[in-house]
Amino acid sequence: MKKEKAVVLLSGGLDSSVVLSIAIKNGFIPYCISFDYGQRHKSELFYAKKQVFLQKVKYYKVFKIDFFGGSALTDNIEIPNNRYSSNIPNDIPVTYVPARNTIFLSYALGYSEYLQCSNIFIGVNIIDYSGYPDCRPEFISMFEKMANIATKQSVLGQKIKIHAPLLKMNKKEIIETGEKNNVDFKYTMSCYNPKNKINCGECDACLLRLNGFFEANMKDPTKYKKNV
Amino acid sequence: MKKEKAVVLLSGGLDSSVVLSIAIKNGFIPYCISFDYGQRHKSELFYAKKQVFLQKVKYYKVFKIDFFGGSALTDNIEIPNNRYSSNIPNDIPVTYVPARNTIFLSYALGYSEYLQCSNIFIGVNIIDYSGYPDCRPEFISMFEKMANIATKQSVLGQKIKIHAPLLKMNKKEIIETGEKNNVDFKYTMSCYNPKNKINCGECDACLLRLNGFFEANMKDPTKYKKNV
Repeated sequence: MKKEKAVVLLSGGLDSSVVLSIAIKNGFIPYCISFDYGQRHKSELFYAKKQVFLQKVKYYKVFKIDFFGGSALTDNIEIPNNRYSSNIPNDIPVTYVPARNTIFLSYALGYSEYLQCSNIFIGVNIIDYSGYPDCRPEFISMFEKMANIATKQSVLGQKIKIHAPLLKMNKKEIIETGEKNNVDFKYTMSCYNPKNKINCGECDACLLRLNGFFEANMKDPTKYKKNV
Repeated sequence: MKKEKAVVLLSGGLDSSVVLSIAIKNGFIPYCISFDYGQRHKSELFYAKKQVFLQKVKYYKVFKIDFFGGSALTDNIEIPNNRYSSNIPNDIPVTYVPARNTIFLSYALGYSEYLQCSNIFIGVNIIDYSGYPDCRPEFISMFEKMANIATKQSVLGQKIKIHAPLLKMNKKEIIETGEKNNVDFKYTMSCYNPKNKINCGECDACLLRLNGFFEANMKDPTKYKKNV
C-alpha cells in the first residue's frame, strides 16, 4: 500500500516530538512544519530541527510569520512561575497566544492541500495542560469541520483528518509513548523561558514536564537552572 | 455610545475597499490589516495603503507571512485569460490559493482578540466571484462557529461576529455601494496580473470588475493594457 503523507505541526517541544514519532509509527510520511513567530523561546526551533534529523524526516519547512503579540510568549510580559495546571474553569494564563493554534492549523491546512495530503497531526492535550481554549477537543473537532468545507480538495471530496493522538493522555503517558518510540527527550524543549537552552524549571510548562518524568519514574535528560 | 472596533481585511481590491467604507458607515472604528504573502499582484498593497489614507483609517497593519504556494497568484503558473465566472459546479480556477481566507481570517481572529474587539469584516462574495470554496456563506458561518470556541475571549463569553456585507451583492451593487460611500475606485486594484499598475484586462478579476462598471453604467477610472 502506498504510504500516506501527513503534515505534522512540530514545535520542538516534548509533545509534538512524540506526536511525530506516532505519525511515523502509524506509517505516514511526515511533512513537518514549524513557525518562527517571534516567540521568546525561539530556541525551540533548534530542537524541532534536531528532531527532524533524529527521526529521519525528509520534509521540513519553517514558516516565518509576523505576529501581533498579546501574550507572555511573544511580548515583554513576565512568565508566571509556579503556576501549575489549573482546575479553575476559564483560568487561562498570560502565556496563551491569541488564536495561535487556529493560525497554525490553518497553515497546516493550506500546506496539506498544496501537498494533496489529507492528514494533519497536532500535539494538543487537555490533561496536563495550561488551559488554552484552542487545545480542547471541541475546538479540534470544529476546526476539522470548518477545514472540510474550506478548501478545493474538500469540495472535490477529499476529507481532511486532524489527528490529535495525545488529546487524552497525561504527561506520564506521553513520555512513556515517546520512550517506546525512541524519542530522544534530550533534544526537546518545553520551557517558556529558557536561557541559553537551560530550562527555568519554574514555568508551568517546566512543572508539567518535570511531573510527567517523575510519574513515569524517569529522569528528564534536559538541563534546568535549579537542581530539580 | 462608545464606538466599537472592527478588524477589516483590506487587500486594496475593489471589494475590500467597499467593505471598509461599509464598516465605517456602520459606525465601527476600523483596524485594517493586509498581508504580504508573496502575491504576484503585490502592488495591491500600494492601493490598500492608499485606501487607508483616503478613508482616514487610523490603524493599519501589514503582516508579512511566508506562504507555501500552489496557486497562480503566488507561483509561476499562468493566469488564465478570458475565464469568466464559471457556473460549472466545483470548477475552481488555478488562481485559488490554498486555505487563504482561512489563514487570513485566523489572523483577523487573533488580532481582534489582541484588540479586544468582536467584529471582523471580510469582502467575500458569491455572485460575481471566481468559485473559491472559502468565499461561500457556509464557510464563513462555519469559521464563525469555530472562532467562537477557539479563543480566550470566546470562552469568557465575548461573541465574535464575521461580517461579510457583500456576500450576496453582484458586482454592480458593490460598485454602487462604494460610489454612494465615496470610495475612490481609482485607487483600488482587482487585477491578478498587473504590470506597472496597469490592469491586464483579461483575467477573471478584471472581467468581473469591468462588467460591474458596465452594468452600473459607470466608467472604471483605473488603467487597462488594452482599451476596454
